[in-house]
Amino acid sequence: VIITVTPNPALDLTYHVDAFEAGASLRVDTARVRAGGKGVNVARVARQAGERSIAIAAVGGPTGREFADELKTSGLDHVLVPASGATRRSVAVVDAASGETTIMNERGAPVTADDRAALASAVRASLPGARCLVVSGSLPPGMPTAFCAELVREAHDAGIPVVVDAVEDALVEAARAGADVVKPNRAELRATTGLADPIAGARVLLKHGARLALVSLGAEGMLAVTRDAALHARMPQPLDGNPTGAGDAAVAAVAVSIVTGDDDLRSRLVRATAWSASAVLRPVAGELADNFRDLEHNVGVMDA
Amino acid sequence: VIITVTPNPALDLTYHVDAFEAGASLRVDTARVRAGGKGVNVARVARQAGERSIAIAAVGGPTGREFADELKTSGLDHVLVPASGATRRSVAVVDAASGETTIMNERGAPVTADDRAALASAVRASLPGARCLVVSGSLPPGMPTAFCAELVREAHDAGIPVVVDAVEDALVEAARAGADVVKPNRAELRATTGLADPIAGARVLLKHGARLALVSLGAEGMLAVTRDAALHARMPQPLDGNPTGAGDAAVAAVAVSIVTGDDDLRSRLVRATAWSASAVLRPVAGELADNFRDLEHNVGVMDA
Repeated sequence: VIITVTPNPALDLTYHVDAFEAGASLRVDTARVRAGGKGVNVARVARQAGERSIAIAAVGGPTGREFADELKTSGLDHVLVPASGATRRSVAVVDAASGETTIMNERGAPVTADDRAALASAVRASLPGARCLVVSGSLPPGMPTAFCAELVREAHDAGIPVVVDAVEDALVEAARAGADVVKPNRAELRATTGLADPIAGARVLLKHGARLALVSLGAEGMLAVTRDAALHARMPQPLDGNPTGAGDAAVAAVAVSIVTGDDDLRSRLVRATAWSASAVLRPVAGELADNFRDLEHNVGVMDA
Repeated sequence: VIITVTPNPALDLTYHVDAFEAGASLRVDTARVRAGGKGVNVARVARQAGERSIAIAAVGGPTGREFADELKTSGLDHVLVPASGATRRSVAVVDAASGETTIMNERGAPVTADDRAALASAVRASLPGARCLVVSGSLPPGMPTAFCAELVREAHDAGIPVVVDAVEDALVEAARAGADVVKPNRAELRATTGLADPIAGARVLLKHGARLALVSLGAEGMLAVTRDAALHARMPQPLDGNPTGAGDAAVAAVAVSIVTGDDDLRSRLVRATAWSASAVLRPVAGELADNFRDLEHNVGVMDA
């Protein structure tokens, strides 16, 4: 079982418009409503790939009820703990004319010490039987940056490897706690380390204590950096589509590699690169195109 | 008591952004959430002006629960009947840089015959004790255009005057049923009658059977047209602000005139024009600026 934690879940509303125009009043179809957040996306992808996954999050208010309803409808296993604040929304407007997506991402309600304790306790309770823990996405206002590191230590105490997709202090602290995999993208890694070169940035996180840094480079593919090796993988050509959720597919790929006992660096990187590319072909985050396993054969890998 | 009916209520979400940019991912504060729809706005304004008002609407789903929660919090008297579909959303993004507001207006879920009957029955039950009925706003998909006319007849059977803010067939049928006041804006009147001249358009509605047509002209003020007279009122200069809800304030003004027994055409028009201008000064629909009564002294009226 892969356990995913989403510290800052969101109720995702998506509108599709024919021709977006700032300042206009547009008639639109009912928003597609989805339980969102990076950890939830990771759990969806892992499940699509045939692994059992459980999404853990704290939700509150009427938006939290909608979040719970949608998870139930989608059939994704989940553990939701009550949060004191209402779950935030994220509103995406997809413009068919330009292909652009405009997103209003709510910061979210501040979390309390009790909220934090309740979420950590739900994670702790889920660890027996788990094979991998994923902590993914931004932290809500009021959540200490030590939260990810705290979960890394809890999971390690239970003998369970941890993948962390976070940024800045939270990512550095998770690396220091010995996170098995860290997965920033290039911009996040630069914001975290101050280094423009992603391999140099990855090595900073390894030096802190992380064991593998997976760095997504968008259309240029992905890097896998360990203390002994640095590999660069990419598709023969970039795929057109929706990049939202591509990073989550890479995280799901590495989590599935962990639970299936595949510890070969090259094969982990190939899978992460292929699944990530496959996610780009899908209009929403948290899904892979049907050919996601075939795409693994197309990935080219070289030393970085 | 003023009873307002909102056939197509919406849960209004409003985001304020510093600099809107299509294609960007913007961090925003939690949406301001409000029970919306024209009839609800009219009830809010009438209450602010010291008249008791009751907002009637049919709501459903999780958005309907949020709608009900917000009405409860705001203290507005209301009667909500359960709808089979979920209440639609309307998402507004207010851009501080340009002053523009971009709105995604969901069409809403189709209503069933049972939904229609339940709403009509709630209106019927509210008529004893009412002094004015207001039917305001668009019709949801599946609602017959005869709905407004049906309510006009019900109210008249109970001896209660009716104000209708609707468009096209629904407006024409309401006029034919003898609506006491119809309130289209200039564009709606043109869409309804095919006539560019608002006085000529107003006279078409009077010919159908309406007794007073109030036509809002935006910055150019407002027309009041009866079989015997046509008056044009305007502020000495247009006011800058948010025009959303200006028409609802005019409807509330005429409803308040009706329940307070003020049947002088000139004074009704002055009040509608002043309140409408006052609503422009407020950032959200359903509110008047504090000086709304003072503004009545500034309105200029001439024969049209």
